Amino acid sequence: MNHRIDRMLKPGSRIGILGGGQLGKMLAVAASRLGFTSHIFDPNENSPASQVAFKTLTASYEDKRALIKFANSVDIITYEFENIPTSALDILEKIVPIRPGREALRVSQDRMIEKDFLSGIGLKTAPYQIVDGFNSVQSASEMIGFPAILKTTRLGYDGKGQVRLSKNSDIEKEYTKLKDNVLIYEGFIDFEFEVSVIAARNLSGQVACYDPGQNVHLNGILHTTTVPSQLTSRQTVDAVLIASKILESLNYVGVLGVELFCTKAGLIVNEIAPRVHNSGHWTQNGCSIDQFEQHIRAIAGWPLGDGRRQTNVVMQNLIGDEVNHVPELAKDENISLHLYGKTEIKPGRKMGHFNLVKEK
Amino acid sequence: MNHRIDRMLKPGSRIGILGGGQLGKMLAVAASRLGFTSHIFDPNENSPASQVAFKTLTASYEDKRALIKFANSVDIITYEFENIPTSALDILEKIVPIRPGREALRVSQDRMIEKDFLSGIGLKTAPYQIVDGFNSVQSASEMIGFPAILKTTRLGYDGKGQVRLSKNSDIEKEYTKLKDNVLIYEGFIDFEFEVSVIAARNLSGQVACYDPGQNVHLNGILHTTTVPSQLTSRQTVDAVLIASKILESLNYVGVLGVELFCTKAGLIVNEIAPRVHNSGHWTQNGCSIDQFEQHIRAIAGWPLGDGRRQTNVVMQNLIGDEVNHVPELAKDENISLHLYGKTEIKPGRKMGHFNLVKEK
Repeated sequence: MNHRIDRMLKPGSRIGILGGGQLGKMLAVAASRLGFTSHIFDPNENSPASQVAFKTLTASYEDKRALIKFANSVDIITYEFENIPTSALDILEKIVPIRPGREALRVSQDRMIEKDFLSGIGLKTAPYQIVDGFNSVQSASEMIGFPAILKTTRLGYDGKGQVRLSKNSDIEKEYTKLKDNVLIYEGFIDFEFEVSVIAARNLSGQVACYDPGQNVHLNGILHTTTVPSQLTSRQTVDAVLIASKILESLNYVGVLGVELFCTKAGLIVNEIAPRVHNSGHWTQNGCSIDQFEQHIRAIAGWPLGDGRRQTNVVMQNLIGDEVNHVPELAKDENISLHLYGKTEIKPGRKMGHFNLVKEK
Repeated sequence: MNHRIDRMLKPGSRIGILGGGQLGKMLAVAASRLGFTSHIFDPNENSPASQVAFKTLTASYEDKRALIKFANSVDIITYEFENIPTSALDILEKIVPIRPGREALRVSQDRMIEKDFLSGIGLKTAPYQIVDGFNSVQSASEMIGFPAILKTTRLGYDGKGQVRLSKNSDIEKEYTKLKDNVLIYEGFIDFEFEVSVIAARNLSGQVACYDPGQNVHLNGILHTTTVPSQLTSRQTVDAVLIASKILESLNYVGVLGVELFCTKAGLIVNEIAPRVHNSGHWTQNGCSIDQFEQHIRAIAGWPLGDGRRQTNVVMQNLIGDEVNHVPELAKDENISLHLYGKTEIKPGRKMGHFNLVKEK
C-alpha cells in the first residue's frame, strides 16, 4: 500500500472506527474534541459508539459493498478491537489508510504469531508450544510441565477460549472443550502482580508512555487498574522500554496496550493489544490527554499530548449488574463515572467503569 | 407545571438540548459519559452538537409540530442559550420538564428584569435606567452621568447590541444605531478586573461553585479566563456567596455563570447566564468533573460532582482564523485543545478553545 499522510490530518477530517463498543465510543468523543467527525462501522444496531458518532454504518464484516462505502466516506480508519477479518481489511486498505497498520493486527490476532514475534525481538514470554491434537498436548505438557493454560490461538478474550491444566489427568477433560480450535499450550507464570503499559507512537515516530497501571482480574475480566503500580522505578523503566521496543519493531502508529507479568525473574510479556485498552481508562481522570485522544492524535499525524500522571487513580470496571450501584457511586465526590450507554445488562458485560481519584 | 422527578434520571434516559453550538456539543459529550443519550434541537443543519448527538431535529423555534415531536422524544429538556422564544418554551414545558426553569430564563432574557432582580435581592449592579427615546436617554445621562453604555435589553451578546457613550455629544450619533430597540442606560463601571463564578445547584438544592476565573475580553468577546484569579480569599468567598444567593433566589437547577466586576467599592454583578459558560471551559482540564457534566448531573437529579480545582489553567478562545494556529498549539505539551467542528471560519466566530495547564 502506498498511502501516506505526511502532515497533520486537519480538523474537519473524518475518522472511521471499526467497532462500536465502549472503546469506539470513547475514541469518537476524543476525535470530536479535536474537531474530527467519527464514522462507526459495526454489525450491531444501537452500539454505544453510535450514540456519539457523526455517522454509523450497520453492516457485517462480510458485506463487501458496505465496507467499500464506509472506506470511501472517511479519511482514515482505526479500530477498537483486533479481530477484524482479514478479508475486510484487504478491502478497506485499498481505499484508505488503516492505523495501526496490518502488521500489528497480524501479530496480535494469533497468540502463536504474537509469542514468536515477542521472543524474536528478545522479550520474555511464558514458555509455549503450538498443539494440534490430544497427543501433542500430552507431549507439550511433558516439555513445559504443569500448571499450564491451554488457549485458542485466535479470538479469545476476557478469559474466554482458555482452560487451566493442573495435572496430567486434566488434559482429557479440558482439552475436549477447545479441541476444534488451533491451540497453544502455555506454561503458567507464577507472577507477583500484573501491570500494563499504555504506550503511543505517532506517524513521525514520537513515542510516549503512560505510567504503568497494576491490574487485578476477577473471573478472567479486568476488575481494577491502580496507578501508581507496585513496580520499582527500575522496573517501571524496564516496562516502558519493553513497550517502546514493541512499538518500534512493529513500526506502530497509535496506542498499544502491553500486559506484563511481574515475576522474581523479571518482567514477562503476557499479551499485546493494538488499540486503546481497558487498563488505560484511568488516564481519563489522571492525565491531561487521555489514551483515547492520544490514539487519535497518533493516527492523525498530530504531535502526541501530555500523558504525565497528575493524580493517583483506581479504575474499576462495572460488570453486569454492578452498574446498579451507580446511584451510590455518584454520591462519592472522588469518583468519576463513565457509563457506556448499553441498554441490556448481561452477566460479564462491561457496562461502565469509574475512576476513584486521589491527590498525589 | 406539575412535573417532578424526585429521583435520579436513570442512565439510558434521553436529554433534549435546545441549541446545537459548542456548548450543546460539550453538554452532549458529558451526557453520554453518564450513559444518557442527547437529542439536539437546532434550526441549522450540521451544528457542532449534531456531530456527537444521538439524534438531531433540525427545525425552527416557530415550528410547533417539531417542538411537540422533540419534547415527546426526550425525558427532560435543557438549553445552551437563554434567548429561546417564550412561545417555544410554552409548548415544550407542557410535555416535559425544562431545567433550568422558566424563572431563570425570564430574568436573564431581559437586562432590565435582570437588573431589577439582582437589586431586589440586595446585590450591587451598575446604575441603570430603562430608556425609550432620545429625550429619555438624555435625562438618564443627567441622572447617571458619563461614561455609560447603552444596551438593548434583549438578545445582545459578545459585544453586540451595545454602544459606549463618553459625552453628551455621543448620544445622538450612537443612539440611532440602536433606536429600534428597548434600551437600558448603564453607568460605566471602572473595574479593576472581571471574574466569573460558575456555580451549580441540583434538584435537591445542593450547591457547588468552581473557583472564580478572571476574564479578559478582546473586541467584546471573551479572550482568556485564568484560574486562580487575582481575587483575595475574602473576595472569593464574597463572589461565591453572590452566586449562591442568585441560585437560591431563582430556585435554580443547573449550572449558572455570574460575571462580576471587581471594583474598589466591592463586587458588582455584571450579568448572569442560566447555562454553562465560556468562562467555565477551564474546568475541562482543571477539575475532575467539568461544568458540562456538573450541569447534566444537576438537571438529572444526580448528586453534584467534585469541582475542586486540581491545576492552574489559562483558557483561551480561538476566534475566527486563530483556529489556524492549531498545528503549533498541538505541539505544546501543556495545551489541551477543544475544537468545535465548525466548517466555516468567520471573523468573530468561536471556533474552539484551549486550556494551558500548569501544576499548582
